[in-house]
Amino acid sequence: MSTGVVRRRMGVEERRQQLIGVALELFSHRSPDEVSIDEIASAAGISRPLVYHYFPGKLSLYEAALRRAADDLAGRFVEPHEGPLGARLLRVMRRFFDFVDQHGPGFSALMRGGPAVGSSTTNALIDAVRQAAYDQIVSHLGVEEPPARLELVVRSWISLAESTALIWLDGRHVPRAELEVQLVHNFAALAAVGAAHDEEMAMVMRRVLKDEPGDGPFGDLVVRLISLAS
Amino acid sequence: MSTGVVRRRMGVEERRQQLIGVALELFSHRSPDEVSIDEIASAAGISRPLVYHYFPGKLSLYEAALRRAADDLAGRFVEPHEGPLGARLLRVMRRFFDFVDQHGPGFSALMRGGPAVGSSTTNALIDAVRQAAYDQIVSHLGVEEPPARLELVVRSWISLAESTALIWLDGRHVPRAELEVQLVHNFAALAAVGAAHDEEMAMVMRRVLKDEPGDGPFGDLVVRLISLAS
Repeated sequence: MSTGVVRRRMGVEERRQQLIGVALELFSHRSPDEVSIDEIASAAGISRPLVYHYFPGKLSLYEAALRRAADDLAGRFVEPHEGPLGARLLRVMRRFFDFVDQHGPGFSALMRGGPAVGSSTTNALIDAVRQAAYDQIVSHLGVEEPPARLELVVRSWISLAESTALIWLDGRHVPRAELEVQLVHNFAALAAVGAAHDEEMAMVMRRVLKDEPGDGPFGDLVVRLISLAS
Repeated sequence: MSTGVVRRRMGVEERRQQLIGVALELFSHRSPDEVSIDEIASAAGISRPLVYHYFPGKLSLYEAALRRAADDLAGRFVEPHEGPLGARLLRVMRRFFDFVDQHGPGFSALMRGGPAVGSSTTNALIDAVRQAAYDQIVSHLGVEEPPARLELVVRSWISLAESTALIWLDGRHVPRAELEVQLVHNFAALAAVGAAHDEEMAMVMRRVLKDEPGDGPFGDLVVRLISLAS
């Protein structure tokens, strides 16, 4: 009897997970405002009332789907602490654009805000992903207590990566591979400006950059800038 | 008699404008969620039902206040097409931070989204201000039809300016005057990265930068970066 109970409980959770997966797929390809519970029910092969049995409404299902997407994205930020920093950041950028590519319309709708997506739960999820990105970068920079200027550079670069992805999704006029490199270059450029204003920041960047190879993305930027200036 | 009609109509519009001013003041200093119609009525020296006579609800009054703030901010982007570009951009950054300083909590609440502020009208107003900023910058760069890469640099720098302002408001750990200069430097750095990736963008930047003086903000950045590298 106890196994039966266990099996039944797993069934509920499995069904919930299946619904979340179906909903995430739909919310990824169209704005959440345009996705109905009927559609989700039909895509999951169950009745509309049964959807409501598992989730009280579309918002709660949307939030569950968003939570899964947020976990997925935060997981992509994790990178071994090995090798040059520029190459690590470039690998993360590739995974970030994979994610953005995969969830394009849903990502745009979420980040641009709007009636269905501006709840305090969705905002908290977005902030948690930003914080995960921030924590990863700071840990790769090897900084225990980031000075205010470094925090500003990292957080503002994260917002730059978001907006670059949103602009890319709106027409895809620049190839994503170029934007991935450009964002790594932007990080170096913003860090250099920060370092030019703040000695503590300059010390962090000197330590980090001394191991960068000439053929990595940071070295590539220096070569490009020198050829631009000449 | 016709003058009487005119005077009465002006009274209505004046009262609306007064209410918008009072509401903007309150919405600037606290999150809109925390401001009640009662408070607005009391600050305007009129009764609560009279507020509803002019505005059907808090959202419409909030949107009217936001429209005034948006017009104010867009007006601050306008700068004569005279003198070096770096100095022009620095003057605009000063006026932008004046605005952010003046409307701090309201600006934060608006840009961070949330139940009271995520309507399609508020989103459209934010987009209109971003577009005004974009149009101004492109016109100062003297570009008729911006290539995709230039558009990306300008739009992503605008989002960087927004997020820098939001991070500054959250604790004001870095003096705003330094951030104003740093944002001008960030523009130069992001434009340089864009130019390092795209010949069309490089041509625009070479033309623009040839008139920059050594003691302007762009020249200052070059001096700082050289001293950093040495």
